[in-house]
Amino acid sequence: MADAEKAALLEQIKAQGEVVRKCKTEKVPKEQVEEEVAKLLALKAQLGDDGPKKFVLKTPKGARDYNPEQMAIREGVFNKIIQCFKRHGAETIDTPVFELKETLTGKYGEDSKLIYDLADQGGELLSLRYDLTVPFARYLAMNKVTNIKRYHIAKVYRRDNPAMTRGRYREFYQCDFDIAGQYDAMLPDAECIRIVAEILDNLQIGDFVVKVNHRRLLDGMFAACGVPDEKFRSICSAVDKLDKTFWTDVRAEMVDEKGLDPASADKIGEYVRFQGGVEVVEMLMKDEALQKQPSAVEALKDMHLLLKYCELYGVLDKVLFDMSLARGLDYYTGVIYEAVLKGYSHQQSTANAEEQVGVGSVAGGGRYDGLVGMFDPKGKKVPCVGVSIGVERIFSIMEAKAQSSAVKIRTTETEVYIISAQKNLVEERLRLCSELWAADIKTEQSYKCNPKALDQFQYCENNGIPIAIIIGQSEIEKGVVKLRNVATREEREVRRTDMVQEIKKTLAGLTAVDTGLDGN
Amino acid sequence: MADAEKAALLEQIKAQGEVVRKCKTEKVPKEQVEEEVAKLLALKAQLGDDGPKKFVLKTPKGARDYNPEQMAIREGVFNKIIQCFKRHGAETIDTPVFELKETLTGKYGEDSKLIYDLADQGGELLSLRYDLTVPFARYLAMNKVTNIKRYHIAKVYRRDNPAMTRGRYREFYQCDFDIAGQYDAMLPDAECIRIVAEILDNLQIGDFVVKVNHRRLLDGMFAACGVPDEKFRSICSAVDKLDKTFWTDVRAEMVDEKGLDPASADKIGEYVRFQGGVEVVEMLMKDEALQKQPSAVEALKDMHLLLKYCELYGVLDKVLFDMSLARGLDYYTGVIYEAVLKGYSHQQSTANAEEQVGVGSVAGGGRYDGLVGMFDPKGKKVPCVGVSIGVERIFSIMEAKAQSSAVKIRTTETEVYIISAQKNLVEERLRLCSELWAADIKTEQSYKCNPKALDQFQYCENNGIPIAIIIGQSEIEKGVVKLRNVATREEREVRRTDMVQEIKKTLAGLTAVDTGLDGN
Repeated sequence: MADAEKAALLEQIKAQGEVVRKCKTEKVPKEQVEEEVAKLLALKAQLGDDGPKKFVLKTPKGARDYNPEQMAIREGVFNKIIQCFKRHGAETIDTPVFELKETLTGKYGEDSKLIYDLADQGGELLSLRYDLTVPFARYLAMNKVTNIKRYHIAKVYRRDNPAMTRGRYREFYQCDFDIAGQYDAMLPDAECIRIVAEILDNLQIGDFVVKVNHRRLLDGMFAACGVPDEKFRSICSAVDKLDKTFWTDVRAEMVDEKGLDPASADKIGEYVRFQGGVEVVEMLMKDEALQKQPSAVEALKDMHLLLKYCELYGVLDKVLFDMSLARGLDYYTGVIYEAVLKGYSHQQSTANAEEQVGVGSVAGGGRYDGLVGMFDPKGKKVPCVGVSIGVERIFSIMEAKAQSSAVKIRTTETEVYIISAQKNLVEERLRLCSELWAADIKTEQSYKCNPKALDQFQYCENNGIPIAIIIGQSEIEKGVVKLRNVATREEREVRRTDMVQEIKKTLAGLTAVDTGLDGN
Repeated sequence: MADAEKAALLEQIKAQGEVVRKCKTEKVPKEQVEEEVAKLLALKAQLGDDGPKKFVLKTPKGARDYNPEQMAIREGVFNKIIQCFKRHGAETIDTPVFELKETLTGKYGEDSKLIYDLADQGGELLSLRYDLTVPFARYLAMNKVTNIKRYHIAKVYRRDNPAMTRGRYREFYQCDFDIAGQYDAMLPDAECIRIVAEILDNLQIGDFVVKVNHRRLLDGMFAACGVPDEKFRSICSAVDKLDKTFWTDVRAEMVDEKGLDPASADKIGEYVRFQGGVEVVEMLMKDEALQKQPSAVEALKDMHLLLKYCELYGVLDKVLFDMSLARGLDYYTGVIYEAVLKGYSHQQSTANAEEQVGVGSVAGGGRYDGLVGMFDPKGKKVPCVGVSIGVERIFSIMEAKAQSSAVKIRTTETEVYIISAQKNLVEERLRLCSELWAADIKTEQSYKCNPKALDQFQYCENNGIPIAIIIGQSEIEKGVVKLRNVATREEREVRRTDMVQEIKKTLAGLTAVDTGLDGN
């Protein structure tokens, strides 16, 4: 490194050092301090001195590891969700984590800036998937699939500035269920709502409401309010902010930023206040301005039928028709949904509305009849409707629940631990393990040749292992083992030849091992 | 676009058009043709004409979608592997798909060039993970975990030029099991071999052998053959190619490219031919040149103990000590393994050795005692050993097996299909579905209001759905439904109030639904 370069680098290090010191004294959030420290270490690493290399020990911004307790919770949540998808006859597919960059271009409106690109290392230009819907549409068009009911659980990537304390990340899971095919109105759409209700009920994370609206009703409303066609999308994305911002701010965005006539904005302001059940739909059906808009008439007819099907599916009490629901993504064309946990609504604390933004949203989706056609060389359409379960939010809630509960989460399923009561019995322990594994019994032992008896007993208790098999020289000579119930500390001798059978009987007799998560 | 630019672009398009034509006439592999066509379409897209946009409908090079049949196979394989990991008491963790670039730097030797970088869009420099081992070591150091037995199943990324027909991709799954902790010699190492044997036995993909060697034995051998210390790693990576190349080529690489003394190379050539069981280890223990190398003496002692433990674990017949096994990755420090399917060994067809390269390798791993220390600020070491199951290879074998079998793979688990025998019964069907879902019975129905009876019956047969519930106006009036066994076509009336109970009884009585994959 040239001296001038080095001097410049040392200056940068000094400046960054001061940023870090300032962060620490001013008690900014831990996460931000870590980032500034990381920058400092990265600068120092460039010095390339010969000392032991300083690694920046962190995950990338907005990404996180899952430890075994978190994984146990995650597995429990996924199992319940998959069980529901399978109950509705869904198959599953998988797509690559990256797509050709152009596959994602023009699908996400204002959010496209959040797409992660891969570096151009020669070859194709690639981006990380932003959701699972666009890859699904690409899959359908590429494989000429015209009807399928599939779920897809995978990670997606958004270069957002996430508030991780509230369960929002740059890398996060989506759990999507979609029905593709040319079907009769509202039958698949209503099943999606039923699925959301089944899953949220089953996870027991509190009372919720599934808000529904219709993109063509929004379009009709915009037309009725005098919004010019070319402004529909941008005005729609302003309405989308109503769940997190006050009307006055949304109105300002429409009028000042997006150049909408103030009178039009005020008319929109009247409509977006409507919410309720079938009575609101019926009232809007009589609205003179809307009656002149074919798209609104059609959409209200859809809404009416959707609510009827929801009633037959026994979920009408969970559904709220809400004219202010817009959803940002460009590709929706029909019904749109959003499930919100009631306890987390931002209306709770209007003083701090920004902080509570959308915390309660745990599922969303809608109909997107045009997306597959964007990929088909002949523009052939495949109508689709689907929902995405916001599992990261659900994980956060379940983690908080687990932390406040006294029940320890088991992260393994070990049934038997082999204990040697004396020295020099490692070979016999290996033989026993081998036998139990062959019988499909989940078995562990110490990785030390001569472990202390107390350590072995404690391992069983700390890890919730129900049975210990204890051997000593005398047991080996007698051809028996001791079978210990770890919880009750009862012990009995069983013949070595009966061991597998006795263990299986004992396991069946014990209460199903509690993992702290029912149905796990 | 300026005219000059446009002219240049048109030139490029013309040239690329000729490349495509040439490809097509010369019958180059389909995959390559598709790539050249994609380049052509990308160039044409730059023209930005107003016609319908041409999309390049493909997944990125080296990546693929999984369709529902492939997913059913994948799920079956994963379930068996996870079952084995859990049988051995493992927990699971997850890490992000990308890491800070510097986390991966300096861990993969010559393979580092294959790492995918993300574009610099401001913020940290990131790379996609290359394996699960380095992120695991980063996780241990970052969280100060000193012992854990964990599995991790996730996708990894390598910018290789893969032969996809042979189950090699740029995006592929790894299934890793690792034991971290300061334990007694060879106890965790032997369990890893047992796990590989259990999994491969269980998957029934054919006879296999687990080759074992020891990095410190290789080091000792290199020293005994007069290889200078600083050449150990590069000579080791040459030896690593012995499973796919002839000795004469490897020798040439050592002598001509890497400047090794020909006499040293010839001595190595003698040693790497040794393979066998404990008798070979005992013979090498008496080898005068090796006896002078402390690392070789120590490694041979390890090998001897490892083979004894493998015998106690009942897997000695699957293990082959092989002095030519090297494994390329820089981080291994002790025992190394590689499981090879016997039917796929390249020795089968020496005429076409290049084509058969490593097709048989289905698992690999080893001990890496230094990797965690590379991340710890104080260099604190956590000894680790683990194996990685090559599931993509296994998927390919299972897919080929499924294709050649007559049994159709079920991709859903639907138990009941609701059929309406007449028109205008959609509402009743919705009620029935709702009731069955609430009883956790996997139920489907048509998404049409008035589907044809024949279509509904065929759907059941095509999808292997065991039970159909049939309703018509007369059934509704009588308060009954018809329960049909789809396979036998037997039908009987059951009271509507008994329906759930009757279905459950019938399902329990039917042979377990065959998914075409046992244990799925």
